[in-house]
Amino acid sequence: MQELRVRRRVEFADTDMGGIVHFSRFYVFMEWAEHEFLRSLGANPGSFVDAEGRHIGWPRVAASCEFLSPARFGDEIEIHVRVLRKGTSSLTYGFDLRREGTHVARGQTTVVHCQFDDPDSPGGIKAIPIPPEIAGLISVAS
Amino acid sequence: MQELRVRRRVEFADTDMGGIVHFSRFYVFMEWAEHEFLRSLGANPGSFVDAEGRHIGWPRVAASCEFLSPARFGDEIEIHVRVLRKGTSSLTYGFDLRREGTHVARGQTTVVHCQFDDPDSPGGIKAIPIPPEIAGLISVAS
Amino acid sequence: MQELRVRRRVEFADTDMGGIVHFSRFYVFMEWAEHEFLRSLGANPGSFVDAEGRHIGWPRVAASCEFLSPARFGDEIEIHVRVLRKGTSSLTYGFDLRREGTHVARGQTTVVHCQFDDPDSPGGIKAIPIPPEIAGLISVAS
Amino acid sequence: MQELRVRRRVEFADTDMGGIVHFSRFYVFMEWAEHEFLRSLGANPGSFVDAEGRHIGWPRVAASCEFLSPARFGDEIEIHVRVLRKGTSSLTYGFDLRREGTHVARGQTTVVHCQFDDPDSPGGIKAIPIPPEIAGLISVAS
Repeated sequence: MQELRVRRRVEFADTDMGGIVHFSRFYVFMEWAEHEFLRSLGANPGSFVDAEGRHIGWPRVAASCEFLSPARFGDEIEIHVRVLRKGTSSLTYGFDLRREGTHVARGQTTVVHCQFDDPDSPGGIKAIPIPPEIAGLISVAS
Repeated sequence: MQELRVRRRVEFADTDMGGIVHFSRFYVFMEWAEHEFLRSLGANPGSFVDAEGRHIGWPRVAASCEFLSPARFGDEIEIHVRVLRKGTSSLTYGFDLRREGTHVARGQTTVVHCQFDDPDSPGGIKAIPIPPEIAGLISVAS
Repeated sequence: MQELRVRRRVEFADTDMGGIVHFSRFYVFMEWAEHEFLRSLGANPGSFVDAEGRHIGWPRVAASCEFLSPARFGDEIEIHVRVLRKGTSSLTYGFDLRREGTHVARGQTTVVHCQFDDPDSPGGIKAIPIPPEIAGLISVAS
Repeated sequence: MQELRVRRRVEFADTDMGGIVHFSRFYVFMEWAEHEFLRSLGANPGSFVDAEGRHIGWPRVAASCEFLSPARFGDEIEIHVRVLRKGTSSLTYGFDLRREGTHVARGQTTVVHCQFDDPDSPGGIKAIPIPPEIAGLISVAS
């Protein structure tokens, strides 16, 4: 299945003095769900050296989130993750976060498969194609 | 001036194993710049009880960011903050983050002035108008 | 049982540019394990108003940790938590963190049951006795 | 001078739902002060490749903190940092954090100068002597 639902409980350290989850933590929740999604497909999100010995990674080029309802310490959040777009080097993930049916947040992140040690690129980082063994695992949610 | 430029150095704890600033930290940088902007106008971002004794705050309802170039430990980042839209209860801020002229990130956040202890609202949180003494300080950047 | 073993996988956002878990995150792991321990006893770590209507909490007055072996993204960490000392208002927890038998970290935190809205105390925070219904659940590990 | 006093304002994201700085953030404050201390001596805390081309760093082997008085959003914290012990490979730093004279926290961290890519060490990390050009800059506070 080209989507996954994972559950995560809000921790005390996720909150701020407003008594609710700090908005920056939702981006961490989404990144975690992306990694769980990759694991569910059999891909290893912790592989940072590719078959050619290059130092690779998946930096984000864009991330957005709408915060629809506050989440609080102890809440169990269900995160629904799926792939919205698949490019040569990039993937766009969509996320819906819910607490017992209440829509808490809705977000998107776009990640790019990159080489981190390219001597000819500014900052050393260059987009490279998603390797076929990973691209082949992923299909866009309909 | 209805805009502010503030500088902040990237800390070790802002980085991740990719060797660059973790994307979630840019949202913290933007929130900090928003608070510095309010301070520069004479508003106190740390006032969480209003003149009527209500528990108030400015939760975010949306935040987005494009990550244009990686930032690293020790980099000094200039953040340019301005107000893009002013509604009855909401403000939309725009942010540009640069390192020595290189555009590092570009983001937006929309915050809503809320009462946190409204007994009649779901979750206790209700949008209320921005008080005139704050609204009067803020004009939209042209 | 007056101890608990819980498991947690290291997330990407837990790491720093050294490629290992940032040391500050171990304190979050220990706090999380403390809350899981309380839940395992039937206590609710998310109760912040007591039977008398006071705003209460469990701030830490001391925390220490030895970092014995690095932990990395994807590692599954077993945290063993137990109570080392029980005072009138305070609890000292001990934590051992292991990855497949390797000792990763060993820590202690001392928390104090406090009232957060005491008008007569500096900062409004005053130590108060642990309520008997919680104290009665907890015994010191032998 | 073998000590430094630096100032830092508490940010909204440093707080938790107790309305005070989350204890894990004090460790980040101390690490930041350590790096500012090294910069004040002319050392570069962002050098992660040494003169021999080794990947090096300063992981912490121990950190402790006593939390004496709560700190809140907007508070300006003065951090006094000094070196308490200097070994062949290790440094122990002492930190005092104060807010307008009130002692907020007192901590220590012990860091070890390490090579991160040693093929013969478990986890690849091995303690190596502090290079003379850094060791020579540092003397223990009296």
